[in-house]
Amino acid sequence: MAKTKTKPAKKPAAKPAAKSASKAAPKTAAKAGIKRVYFFGSGKAEGNVTMRDLLGGKGSNLADMTSAGLNVPPGFTITTATCKEYNDAGQKLPKGLLDEVKLHLARVEKATGKKFGDPKNPLLLACRSGAKDSMPGMMDTVLNIGLNDAVVAGMAALTKNDRFAYDSYRRLINMYGDTVMGVDHHHFEHELSAVKNAKGVELDTDLDADGLKDVVERYKKVYAEHVGSPFPTDPIEQLTLAIEAVFKSWMGDRAIRYREINEIRGLLGTAVNVQAMVFGNMGDDCATGVAFTRNPSTGENEFYGEFLVNAQGEDVVAGIRTPLECKSEMAKWSKKGWQELLEVKKKLEARYKDVQDFEFTIERGTFYMLQTRNGKRTAPAAVRIAIEMLKEKLIDEKTAILRVDPAALDQLLHPTFNPNFPKTIVAKGLPASPGAAVGKIAFTAEEAEERVGKGEQIILVRRETEPADIGGMHVSEGILTSTGGMTSHAAVVARGMGTPCVAGAGALQIDAKARTLVINGKTYTDKDVISLDGGTGDVMEGSVPTVEASLTGPFKQLMVLADKHRTLKVRTNADTPNDAEVARNFGAEGIGLTRTEHMFFDPERIQHMREMILATDIEARKKALAKLLPYQREDFIGIFKAMAGLPVTIRLLDPPLHEFLPHNERDQKVLADSLGLTLAQVKNRVDQLHESNPMLGHRGDRLAITYPEILEMQVRAILEAAVAVKKEKVKVLPEIMIPLAGTKEELDYLKKITVQTADAVFKEAGTKVEYMYGTMIEVPRAAITADEMAQTAEFFSFGTNDLTQMTFGYSRDDAGVFLPEYIKKEILPRDPFQSLDIGGVGKLIEMAVKLGRGTNKDLKCGICGEHGGDPKSVEFCHKVGLNYVSCSPFRVPIARLAAAQAAIKSANAATKKK
Amino acid sequence: MAKTKTKPAKKPAAKPAAKSASKAAPKTAAKAGIKRVYFFGSGKAEGNVTMRDLLGGKGSNLADMTSAGLNVPPGFTITTATCKEYNDAGQKLPKGLLDEVKLHLARVEKATGKKFGDPKNPLLLACRSGAKDSMPGMMDTVLNIGLNDAVVAGMAALTKNDRFAYDSYRRLINMYGDTVMGVDHHHFEHELSAVKNAKGVELDTDLDADGLKDVVERYKKVYAEHVGSPFPTDPIEQLTLAIEAVFKSWMGDRAIRYREINEIRGLLGTAVNVQAMVFGNMGDDCATGVAFTRNPSTGENEFYGEFLVNAQGEDVVAGIRTPLECKSEMAKWSKKGWQELLEVKKKLEARYKDVQDFEFTIERGTFYMLQTRNGKRTAPAAVRIAIEMLKEKLIDEKTAILRVDPAALDQLLHPTFNPNFPKTIVAKGLPASPGAAVGKIAFTAEEAEERVGKGEQIILVRRETEPADIGGMHVSEGILTSTGGMTSHAAVVARGMGTPCVAGAGALQIDAKARTLVINGKTYTDKDVISLDGGTGDVMEGSVPTVEASLTGPFKQLMVLADKHRTLKVRTNADTPNDAEVARNFGAEGIGLTRTEHMFFDPERIQHMREMILATDIEARKKALAKLLPYQREDFIGIFKAMAGLPVTIRLLDPPLHEFLPHNERDQKVLADSLGLTLAQVKNRVDQLHESNPMLGHRGDRLAITYPEILEMQVRAILEAAVAVKKEKVKVLPEIMIPLAGTKEELDYLKKITVQTADAVFKEAGTKVEYMYGTMIEVPRAAITADEMAQTAEFFSFGTNDLTQMTFGYSRDDAGVFLPEYIKKEILPRDPFQSLDIGGVGKLIEMAVKLGRGTNKDLKCGICGEHGGDPKSVEFCHKVGLNYVSCSPFRVPIARLAAAQAAIKSANAATKKK
Repeated sequence: MAKTKTKPAKKPAAKPAAKSASKAAPKTAAKAGIKRVYFFGSGKAEGNVTMRDLLGGKGSNLADMTSAGLNVPPGFTITTATCKEYNDAGQKLPKGLLDEVKLHLARVEKATGKKFGDPKNPLLLACRSGAKDSMPGMMDTVLNIGLNDAVVAGMAALTKNDRFAYDSYRRLINMYGDTVMGVDHHHFEHELSAVKNAKGVELDTDLDADGLKDVVERYKKVYAEHVGSPFPTDPIEQLTLAIEAVFKSWMGDRAIRYREINEIRGLLGTAVNVQAMVFGNMGDDCATGVAFTRNPSTGENEFYGEFLVNAQGEDVVAGIRTPLECKSEMAKWSKKGWQELLEVKKKLEARYKDVQDFEFTIERGTFYMLQTRNGKRTAPAAVRIAIEMLKEKLIDEKTAILRVDPAALDQLLHPTFNPNFPKTIVAKGLPASPGAAVGKIAFTAEEAEERVGKGEQIILVRRETEPADIGGMHVSEGILTSTGGMTSHAAVVARGMGTPCVAGAGALQIDAKARTLVINGKTYTDKDVISLDGGTGDVMEGSVPTVEASLTGPFKQLMVLADKHRTLKVRTNADTPNDAEVARNFGAEGIGLTRTEHMFFDPERIQHMREMILATDIEARKKALAKLLPYQREDFIGIFKAMAGLPVTIRLLDPPLHEFLPHNERDQKVLADSLGLTLAQVKNRVDQLHESNPMLGHRGDRLAITYPEILEMQVRAILEAAVAVKKEKVKVLPEIMIPLAGTKEELDYLKKITVQTADAVFKEAGTKVEYMYGTMIEVPRAAITADEMAQTAEFFSFGTNDLTQMTFGYSRDDAGVFLPEYIKKEILPRDPFQSLDIGGVGKLIEMAVKLGRGTNKDLKCGICGEHGGDPKSVEFCHKVGLNYVSCSPFRVPIARLAAAQAAIKSANAATKKK
Repeated sequence: MAKTKTKPAKKPAAKPAAKSASKAAPKTAAKAGIKRVYFFGSGKAEGNVTMRDLLGGKGSNLADMTSAGLNVPPGFTITTATCKEYNDAGQKLPKGLLDEVKLHLARVEKATGKKFGDPKNPLLLACRSGAKDSMPGMMDTVLNIGLNDAVVAGMAALTKNDRFAYDSYRRLINMYGDTVMGVDHHHFEHELSAVKNAKGVELDTDLDADGLKDVVERYKKVYAEHVGSPFPTDPIEQLTLAIEAVFKSWMGDRAIRYREINEIRGLLGTAVNVQAMVFGNMGDDCATGVAFTRNPSTGENEFYGEFLVNAQGEDVVAGIRTPLECKSEMAKWSKKGWQELLEVKKKLEARYKDVQDFEFTIERGTFYMLQTRNGKRTAPAAVRIAIEMLKEKLIDEKTAILRVDPAALDQLLHPTFNPNFPKTIVAKGLPASPGAAVGKIAFTAEEAEERVGKGEQIILVRRETEPADIGGMHVSEGILTSTGGMTSHAAVVARGMGTPCVAGAGALQIDAKARTLVINGKTYTDKDVISLDGGTGDVMEGSVPTVEASLTGPFKQLMVLADKHRTLKVRTNADTPNDAEVARNFGAEGIGLTRTEHMFFDPERIQHMREMILATDIEARKKALAKLLPYQREDFIGIFKAMAGLPVTIRLLDPPLHEFLPHNERDQKVLADSLGLTLAQVKNRVDQLHESNPMLGHRGDRLAITYPEILEMQVRAILEAAVAVKKEKVKVLPEIMIPLAGTKEELDYLKKITVQTADAVFKEAGTKVEYMYGTMIEVPRAAITADEMAQTAEFFSFGTNDLTQMTFGYSRDDAGVFLPEYIKKEILPRDPFQSLDIGGVGKLIEMAVKLGRGTNKDLKCGICGEHGGDPKSVEFCHKVGLNYVSCSPFRVPIARLAAAQAAIKSANAATKKK
C-alpha cells in the first residue's frame, strides 16, 4: 500500500528525552566511521523501539515491527544525526554516507530478491521523513523511486499491467518534480487534465495505459522545462536527491513554524526511511487494507477491518470502491491471507499490549505490514478493552486504569443520540453539559415550570440563565443559551444537575417577548421540538431518538479498580438530597460543597428572603430569617440523611443580595404590595444593592459580617438539622464553610458567632454534634496568607472558579469576549475555567496548602470549583497533596478514575527517579 | 494641677519589648526582698526612662523629669510586676509591700516637709495608674488621699481657705467611693444637686465653704449607706485601698477589652504612681498652666502658654475663666515664675530635643512640673521646628527628617480656608482631595465647562463622576459627590489634578435634572455659592476666604534634606504637560504613569474614538485610529518636553471601550447621525460592550490583543513623538507599559507588534530612540509568575489599585458598602485602597520583585497606584527594594519625605541589629 503523506499521529508524550539526545548525538556523529544507516528486514533490525531520538518515530517503529517478526517491507533508516550533519554543513551530505546507503541498499535487494534499477526485476523505493515527534505533512515524501523509461517498461512486462506501471511512473515524476525540484504541482495537473479531456474521461482512474503513457511524456516535458534539465534516469541519483529533499524539508519554513507552534525543541533533525515499495494494486492476487485488533466501537474482542483487492491504500480511504469486511470476506478471497491477519492480530497485541490500528498490503500473495499504532476507540470500548485485557493478563491493573481517558467517561453517564438516526443540525454551541435532550421550546423559566407541570418535555431557551431560573432549569430536559461560556451560569448549574446544556450558540436570535427563536432566518416557536447534544454542542431540528447508558459491567469493574489505587478522596457538589443520592450512587465519599443559596429560590421561600433583604432594621430582618429557618433545616436533614456517615460541607450564603430581588417593575410592584411597602421603597433598595462589579462586591462572608444574623440563622439550621438526624441514629459530619474570606480576622469574627450559636443549639437540644469550621480559599489574599487563615480554619476548600477569576482578573461572565482570542493566539493553552491554570492559580493553591499545613499539619484541603471534575486538574490536586476533590455528581466517576491515574503516574514517576 | 483622668497619649511604637519583660520580670519578682517601689523626688530618681516595662510610661517619665532637675512633686512608683503578683495571688498584696510603701512614704514626707495624716502640715497624695502602654481612662485614679475630718480642718486653717479644703475633701470621698468602692457616681451627684438647689446656685464653683461642708457630710452618708461602713479615716488605709483599686482595675472588663482591641499583649500589669499633691488653687500666690516650648501653630521659637492664678488645671481647660498669656502676663504676676518657665523651656528642649507640651503648677511660689510630652503641632510648625532645631544643633539631619509627618505636608501644598472666618458647615463628606475651593454649583460636567468658559468659578456637584466628566472636572474649582469613597473616580482623578474634592457626602440629595441640591431640607441651585474643604470633608454655605500656601523657606530646606537621605526615586502620575510641569516643580524625577485614555475624552477626540469603537471591520477601525494618532503624538511631545531628560512611562489604553460611548439615547442618536449609522446600530454596540463585571472584563492589554491596531497606533504616536522631540535635541526616555497582563505570553505577543511598529517608525524617521518595554503588575497572576513576566518585561510597575481589588476581591466602586463595617469591626486595620495591605498585597509585591529580579537582576520596579503617595506604603516600597514610587503631583513632596524617612528607619534598624 503506497502512501503519499506521512500519516498524522498523536503528539508523542516523551518530549523531554530529546534534550539529552541533542547533547549526546553530535559528538558521536562527528567521529569518522560513525554508523549513519540502520537496516531492517527479513525479521531483523539494527535499530529498536528505544532509538526514537536517532531513528525517529517511524524508523524505530519499522525496526520494532521487523524484530517482532512482522513482515515489514525491508529498508533502512538514515539517522536524525545525519540530518543535523547535513544542515550544519550548509546542506551537504556527509562523506561516506552514500557508500553506506549503497551498502544497505544491497541488503534490501537481497531481502527482496529484487534489484534497484534493474528493468527485469526492479526494486522500487519509498523515501519518507520521520522525526522523533510526529510532524504530519510538514516534510517530504517521494515514492516509486527507481523508475525510468527502461525500468517502467520492464515492470509493465513483469506485472503484465501497463496501466499500473505507467501510473506509478507518472506519480514519481510528479512527486519528484514537485517535492525535490520545486516545480509547482499545477503544471502537472494542467497536463493531466489535458489528457483526460482528450480521452473524454473524468477520473484519473478511468485513464487507460495509453493515456498514462501520454501523461508520462508530458510530465517529463514539464519537468525539463521548469527544472532546466531532463528528469534523472539514474535511480541512484533519484534516491540521493530524494534523501536530500527530506533533509532540506526539515529546515523548510512550514516545518520550522510547526516546531515553533508545537514547542518541538531540541531535536537533531528528521530521519529518512528508505523502504522497498510494495503494491496492493499489481493484480487480483494483491490487496490492501486497514484493521483494528479489536472492535474500536464496542471493544469486543473480534477482528475488525476492511480490505480491497487490487487496490492502493488511498482507495480504501477515498471510498470510491466499497471495501470488504475482513472477518466475513477475507477467507473467501484468500484463506492464507485471513490466517495471516489473525496471526498478526495476536502478535501485535502480544507485543504492544493494546488494541492496534494497522495497515497491511498483500502483494502477489505476500503479506506486508506497513504501519501499526494504538487504535483510537470510543469510551465504552476503551473501558471494555481495558478490563478484558486485564482479565486476559495482557496488562496489569495500573495499565488498565491508565488506558481509559477519564474525560471520555462522560459519554457513559448520559443518554446519547442514536448515531444511526439522520440529524438536521441547525446550530452549534459549546458542549456545556453532556447528554441528549429532546423537547419543546420554552422561553422563560416560569413557562418551563408551568408546561412541565402539564406533562410537556421542555428545552429551556434563554439568552443566558440567572439564579432565579433555577426552578425552570431543574424541570427542563435541556438548556440552550445564546451567550455565555463553558462556565456560564447555565453551564455550571446544568452540569451540577446533570442536565444537558448547549451554551453560547451565537447563531440563535432569541426574542423572549415575541416568543420566537430564529436560526439562520428560520423561526421556531414554543410548538417546535428541538434536540440538544450537550456532548457535541449540536442543536438539531425535531426529535432525535436517544439511547440510554448504564453504569454496569466493565465500567463498574474499572471503578472498583480505580478506587483500589487512588488516595485522593472524591466528593460531590450537591444542593439537594436528590443530587446527594445520585452522587453517592456514583461513588461520592461526601459532599464538598452544598450551596445554600439555591435553596432560597423556591417560590415559597423567596418571599421570606426578599422580606429579609427589604427589612430596614435588625429585628425585622431576624423575623424574616426565622421564617426561612425551618426550610433550611429540612433541606439539611434531607442532605445529612442521604450522606449518612459521610462528611457534608455546607457553604453559607454567597451571592449578592440583589440576585434575590425582582428586577422588573411588575414583580417589584407585586413584592411591594405583599410586604406593605411602596414601589419606590422596593426600587430604592434594588438601586441601593446595584453594584458595578458584583463579583467583587458585597457577597460571600461580607454578607455575614454586615448581617451576622444571616449566619446565625444558617448555622442554627445546620446544627439543628444535625442534632435531629443524630437523634435518629444517623451519623452526621457537618462542616461549616465560610465563603470568600480573605483575612484571618473575618474567620475569627464569624467563628465567635458560629460557636455561640452552636453552643446555644446544643444546650437547647441537650446533645452535641461534632462539626468543623473552615473556609473557602477563593480570594488570592486567602491563599497568600494561608498560614494565618489556618490558625482559625480547620479545613480549606479551594473555590477555583472565583480563585481563577481573581487571579487572572477575568470575569467568568465577560471573558467569553476575549478568551477565545487568547486561545486562538496561543496566549493561553486552554480555558482556565475548564482546566486549572497550574502555572498561576495552581501555584497559589500549592502555596496555600504548604502555608496552611505549616500552621496545622492536619489541615484538610479540598477543591470544590468546577475543576474538581477535570482530569488534568485532579492530577494536579493529587500532586499537591489535597485530601479530596469535589465535583458535580455526574463527574464523580471521572474524578475517581483521574485520581487513580494520578496516583499511579506519580508512583511511576517516583520509581523512575530512583 | 490635679487631674482626674490619665491623659490620652499616642500608642507607643515599642510594643515587642513587652514580651521579654513578661518573661523576665516574674522570676525576679518572685524572689524575696525584691524591690517593688521606686522613689523619685528632690532631683533624684531610682527609676529612669528605660524602665517603662517595670515602671510604666508615667512612672518612668516622672523619674526622668526628676533626674533632669525639673521640680516634680516627689513620690514613688510601685512596679508593674507587683500588679502581676497581686493579681496572680488572687488579688492579695504581696507580703512586705506595705512596709516598703511606708518606707518610701517617709522619703516623700522628707522631701516635701509635710506629713501624711498630720492635720498641722498634711501631705496629700495622688494615686494614679500607669501601664507601659497608655490606656487612657481605662484604669483608676484617686486624688487627695490623706484627708479626713481632722486633716481637712487643719488644712483649712493652714491655707486659710475653707472652701479649698472642703472642696478637696468632698472630691476625695466621691472619687474614693466611686473608684475604690464602686458606689455609683449618680448617688453623689444627687446630693450635690440638692445642696446647690438649696443654696440657689448653678455651678459647683459657686458653692461656698458652708455649702461644701454640707456636701461633705452628705457624701459621707452616701458612702456609709452604700458601702456598709463609714468612710475610712485612716490615711494609710485610704492609700492601701487606693493602690489595690488601681491593681484591680488592670483586670477590669473595660481594661481587658481595651487591651484586646488594641492588641496590647504581654504586659505584666499597671504600675501605681503615688505622688504628693500640689495645688494651684490654694491662694493668689498659686497658679497653674499649660505651655509649649515653641509656638505649635507657626513653629516660631517663642514661649507659648497660658496660666491662671489661684486655679486648678481643669479650670484652664474648662474655659470658665480666661487664662492669661504667659509671655506677656506671667512676669507681671511673678518675675520668678517667668524666669522659671524660661529655664524649664531650655531644660526640656535640651533633654527631649523636641518641642514639649507641659503642665505646671505654682503652689505658694514653688514651681512644680506635672507632666511633659512631645507637643502636637501644625504641619508648617513641624517643618519650621525641625529645620530650626537642626540649625540650633539640637538635632541631627536624620532626626529633623523623621520629625515631620509626611502626610501632614498635604496642608502645605494647597490653599486653606482662613481659620478665623466664621463657617456654616452644612454637610460632611470624605476628605478626598485636599485644598479649599469656592464656587457656584454646576450639576453636569458640560455645564461646568460652559460656565467656566464664561468666567464663573464652579464647584461640580455630582452623585458620582465618570470618565466622560473629565473635562468638567478639570475646569472646576472643586468637586463634590454624594456617593463614592476615598478611591472613587472623583477622588482619584481630583487628587491627580490637585483639585479639592469632598466625596460621599451622604446628606446631599442631588437632582441633576431639576438642577437642585437639597441638604437637610434646604435647597441650593446653580446660583448658590458653596465652599469645600477637601482636607476635612466640610461642605460650607457661601464663600469662605482662603489663604495661599507656598513651597519655600523651611519646607524647601526639608525637601533638600530628604533628597539627600533617600534612595527611592519619586516619580509622578501625570497625563498632561501641565501636570508634568507641576510635578517636576514639586521634585518629580520622571513620570511613572501616563494614562493615555484621559486624552481621548476631549470633545474633538472622543468622536474619533467612538468611530473606532463602532467600526465593524479592521480597515474602518484603522481609519479612525489614524485620526487619533496626531492628537496622541502632540500630547506625548508636550509631556516629553516637560520631562526632558527624565523617564516617562506611558500606559497603553486601559479602560473598557464602553466607557467611551454615550449611554443615553439622545447622545446615542447624535452619535449615530454623525457617523451615518442607525440608532439601533449604536445601541447594539453599547449593549454588546456591556459587562457584568467590567473591572474583570475586556480591558487593559486584552484590548490590545483583540485589537492590535490600537496598540500599533499608540506605540507609533509615542515613538513618533519621541523622535520629533529628539530632533529638537531634547533628551527623551520613553517607557511603554502594558496594562493588566497576567501571562508572559501576552507580553510576548504584544512586544512583537511593538518592536515591529517601532522599527517602522525609526526607519521612516531615519533615527532611533532608546525605549523600554514593560508591564504593570496588577493582576495577582502576574505577581505569582513574575519570574516568567520578567523574561519579556524590562520593568514592572505595580498597579496597586487593581492589585488590591483582585487580591482581596474587592471592587473599589462597591466596597464602600462593607469596608467601613470591616474597619469598625477591626477586621481590617485601615482601608487597603488608601494604605497598602502589607500582609497580603505587599506579600505579592515582595514575591514579584524577588521572582522578577531572579530572572533579571536589573529589573526596574516601581509602584504607580494610589499608594505611591501614602507614607506607610512608601516605607514598604523602600523596604522591598523598589526603584521608585509614582504618585499624583501634589503628593510628590510627601513621597520624597516618606522615602527619606524609610531610608533612615531601615538604616537605624540595621544598626540596631548589629
